[in-house]
Amino acid sequence: MQRAVVLLSGGLDSATTLAIARSEGRECHCLTVDYGQRHRVEIDAAARVAAALGAAGQRVVRLDLAQFGGSALTDPGIAVPQAPTPGIPVTYVPARNTVFLSLALGWAEVLGAHDLVIGVNALDYSGYPDCRPEYVAAFEQLASLATARGVQGERFHIHAPLQHMTKAQIIRRGIDLGLDYGLTHSCYDPGADGQPCGRCDSCILRAAGFVEAGVADPIAVPAPSPRT
Amino acid sequence: MQRAVVLLSGGLDSATTLAIARSEGRECHCLTVDYGQRHRVEIDAAARVAAALGAAGQRVVRLDLAQFGGSALTDPGIAVPQAPTPGIPVTYVPARNTVFLSLALGWAEVLGAHDLVIGVNALDYSGYPDCRPEYVAAFEQLASLATARGVQGERFHIHAPLQHMTKAQIIRRGIDLGLDYGLTHSCYDPGADGQPCGRCDSCILRAAGFVEAGVADPIAVPAPSPRT
Repeated sequence: MQRAVVLLSGGLDSATTLAIARSEGRECHCLTVDYGQRHRVEIDAAARVAAALGAAGQRVVRLDLAQFGGSALTDPGIAVPQAPTPGIPVTYVPARNTVFLSLALGWAEVLGAHDLVIGVNALDYSGYPDCRPEYVAAFEQLASLATARGVQGERFHIHAPLQHMTKAQIIRRGIDLGLDYGLTHSCYDPGADGQPCGRCDSCILRAAGFVEAGVADPIAVPAPSPRT
Repeated sequence: MQRAVVLLSGGLDSATTLAIARSEGRECHCLTVDYGQRHRVEIDAAARVAAALGAAGQRVVRLDLAQFGGSALTDPGIAVPQAPTPGIPVTYVPARNTVFLSLALGWAEVLGAHDLVIGVNALDYSGYPDCRPEYVAAFEQLASLATARGVQGERFHIHAPLQHMTKAQIIRRGIDLGLDYGLTHSCYDPGADGQPCGRCDSCILRAAGFVEAGVADPIAVPAPSPRT
């Protein structure tokens, strides 16, 4: 089996990515980053998903990106928008995917893996710079220049199987592969009980995806009501 | 003053890099990574150097790369070579500079800085893949694709002022700038008292550099003797 390092946040997209990588027969080593995100509850989801999908292993790397701030996901002083916003959302975490892919690359080199798998997709594409195909291609090029294995002529590949899929297509693919989306967590701004807010970008994209896919989301999302 | 993020390990090269960036009038925000290196004592050196050179600030980011292993610098089970070795040394830490530059990039974006400064140089070049000019150029290209500021048309620049200098040239430049190399730490394998071993690659390169520069190293390095 070909070894791969799979970035696994615990969200819908990365869980589907892992399901796809497993269906391709890969030995998947999952990397989850505890980076100070306000939706830390996703880390528990990542562990559940890794176990359910038969990952060969999972590591949780702690890295306090909150000390830099600059994002609604890491700075409690920046509110998570309760509706989609034009341009790059304030939930963008500066250089996050570059940090994540770098960590995955380091681990891959130690594992002797040449494949890195990341769940960036076309819907994110419109907002986050580090989800675009040209970004992924640039990182792939960097990876071979950055590493001892690269210098020795080996090549790393960054797989982004969701890149050109809509959220509904992603969900249908996951369901076809038997993925239980009840294990996943998407909300950027969950309550103290870990329940999704139903209002943030991520909740809205997820809900719309399930509607378009024509299936029910196994996670019960409460109907949005004005916050007091 | 133009803001810059300077990667500062506490070693001779990064200290000189900071001195150069300060001499260019930059407002320097220093980033030090506590990554599980066996020569953790360099982190104290970084704090001394940042303070002495008037850095605008210093952050120490904790990130346990030792959990991945694969390097003599992070895995106690891999010995630090006591003489230079051909090829890529076992002190290479997989993807380390990519992880460091990614963190620097994220912080730079939050600070509104466009300049990242790293102390890679020609002597390292022969051994570490992520010290080569083509690597630095590839990261610079990635940086603008990876970030919100990049998408908005701003460009990041990776400065590697030591890139084509010998160790002796680096030392002379630092001395010209008034840098006290007694504040720095270079040894990969210090004793429990923090004293340099005098045997590892890093000690040997440093010693040869001071000899070639024709100046005394303010750090007293004991004469190597066989280890028992």
